[in-house]
Amino acid sequence: MKVIVLGGFLEQKHKDLINKTAKEAGAEILYTESEDSIPEEFKDAEVLYGFGVKTAATSKSLKWLCFTSAGVESMLKPGAFANEDCILTNSSGSYGVSIAEHIIAVSLMMMRKMTYNYALALKGEWGERLPQRSLIGSRITVLGTGDIGSSFAKRAAAFEPARIIGVCRSGKCDEPFYDKVLKVDELDSVLPETDLLVMSLPDTVETRGILSRERLALLPHDAFIVNVGRGSAIDEDALVEALESDRLAGAALDVFRQEPIPAGSRLWTTRNLLITPHVAGNLTVGYTVDRNVEMFCEDLLNYAAGRPLKYLVDKKKGY
Amino acid sequence: MKVIVLGGFLEQKHKDLINKTAKEAGAEILYTESEDSIPEEFKDAEVLYGFGVKTAATSKSLKWLCFTSAGVESMLKPGAFANEDCILTNSSGSYGVSIAEHIIAVSLMMMRKMTYNYALALKGEWGERLPQRSLIGSRITVLGTGDIGSSFAKRAAAFEPARIIGVCRSGKCDEPFYDKVLKVDELDSVLPETDLLVMSLPDTVETRGILSRERLALLPHDAFIVNVGRGSAIDEDALVEALESDRLAGAALDVFRQEPIPAGSRLWTTRNLLITPHVAGNLTVGYTVDRNVEMFCEDLLNYAAGRPLKYLVDKKKGY
Repeated sequence: MKVIVLGGFLEQKHKDLINKTAKEAGAEILYTESEDSIPEEFKDAEVLYGFGVKTAATSKSLKWLCFTSAGVESMLKPGAFANEDCILTNSSGSYGVSIAEHIIAVSLMMMRKMTYNYALALKGEWGERLPQRSLIGSRITVLGTGDIGSSFAKRAAAFEPARIIGVCRSGKCDEPFYDKVLKVDELDSVLPETDLLVMSLPDTVETRGILSRERLALLPHDAFIVNVGRGSAIDEDALVEALESDRLAGAALDVFRQEPIPAGSRLWTTRNLLITPHVAGNLTVGYTVDRNVEMFCEDLLNYAAGRPLKYLVDKKKGY
Repeated sequence: MKVIVLGGFLEQKHKDLINKTAKEAGAEILYTESEDSIPEEFKDAEVLYGFGVKTAATSKSLKWLCFTSAGVESMLKPGAFANEDCILTNSSGSYGVSIAEHIIAVSLMMMRKMTYNYALALKGEWGERLPQRSLIGSRITVLGTGDIGSSFAKRAAAFEPARIIGVCRSGKCDEPFYDKVLKVDELDSVLPETDLLVMSLPDTVETRGILSRERLALLPHDAFIVNVGRGSAIDEDALVEALESDRLAGAALDVFRQEPIPAGSRLWTTRNLLITPHVAGNLTVGYTVDRNVEMFCEDLLNYAAGRPLKYLVDKKKGY
């Protein structure tokens, strides 16, 4: 079995683990940094680990694509796979820790007005004691209770919030860090009692525009929003208007309807909007890479043994 | 018993609690925002709650100053009290939560290069995925295991660090969030194995210059430092040199040898130095004010009953 690993982000210890697993699985590994430099003898590879968008679109031999990202919306479009039977797994489960740290960071940055004083410090000016808010006693709502939401909830619980409510499709989540878990159709009831709304949803038919203009209006005027899922979940125009008219305390977005945000976009100058350039989940964080590789190796053994793959994407659900 | 409350930061609910306690304690309360507007009939007040530096220096009637700050070094200087027998309590214990949130915020901001991308966003530019670090697996050393250090350790533990070592005078701390607690004279042994050094020490003879040039050199080159105690604890020149020559990954300072930092100071332009203007502990945070007032009320009852005060400052130790 021929396996292509698009492994520009791997350290030697990761290659050691992959090589050891490949031996057990009877796989022959090609490491390359780019899809453009795959040698002729691997063009018919059966498996690809990495962000293999081009290979998926052109290779009829590819039977399993193990995507290094968590979001797979680009791979669910018509024509994404030359071989329509190609299996798709994703790496949801490796990014939760890094993204949870991002959520805590930006939530505290907003609540503590860190950017205000940082902007002054850049000019060599001593700032001032602006009114601050705190995670202690805050009512937190986590929309999307997967790996990201739950890794965040675990960390947030240590800050002694008033409560953490999870909201997801099924209304069920086994993680112990939520005080309560609601179904998505109960979202409207919890928004008016939310100080911090954390969104970590995949891009699906059901999540697109979920934080609509009407729902934004249900949040208290001193609420904060963090979005680390996909930009399509929020009505960006309505969010900008709410921020500009102080109908929200702040928002921290790592994902946007259009990325990169175009030069001159109104988003750049919206007050109390903290923009990060889609960096919350990141293959530079050691733990994320470790988990990403472990998950691939786990499924490589499953694949070789003909067992079902653990991290399989449900193409209908979209994640 | 006449009690002055310098209460510009109080909400009605706090005044309600103070009034209720005063009734029980047989105290007559004067609320004022400034020491300059104390009426004649309260000039001989026995108790002052607040930042009453002027009154302490001039009133021979003052028997108890309940300081709203945690740091009291200004009140330990000769001449600070006109009445040398005046008792001093502080409000250490009310700031821990707010300062712990600050420490987590700035640690993550440094590890995740948040300021780099924020500075670009201010200019309307989409940033990039710089290498990030993470709290997970980090070796954390907490120098000063009081309310601040322990409130931080509690929160940091949820981020799954490799370990949290506390370092304090006695080498003992009952809080369960440390993997080990060492005495200050064992500090040198733990510095080379520290990824994140958190300093929350009062200003005393023993803490001044504790993070000397020699000790800074013991830290790994990829270590981060956070200081929220007092600026006197660090050799600032040596720190600047270490940062400028990449012998440290970063430092986040909320306290400085001179505050505000003078215009033109080298600190403003030091690379990988995150400056905040002494805002980590803050009477704008609701929880902090609540605790601050509760602690005063607790001791007001103790004082009225002739019991020892709970939050008494040991003037010899300096905290």
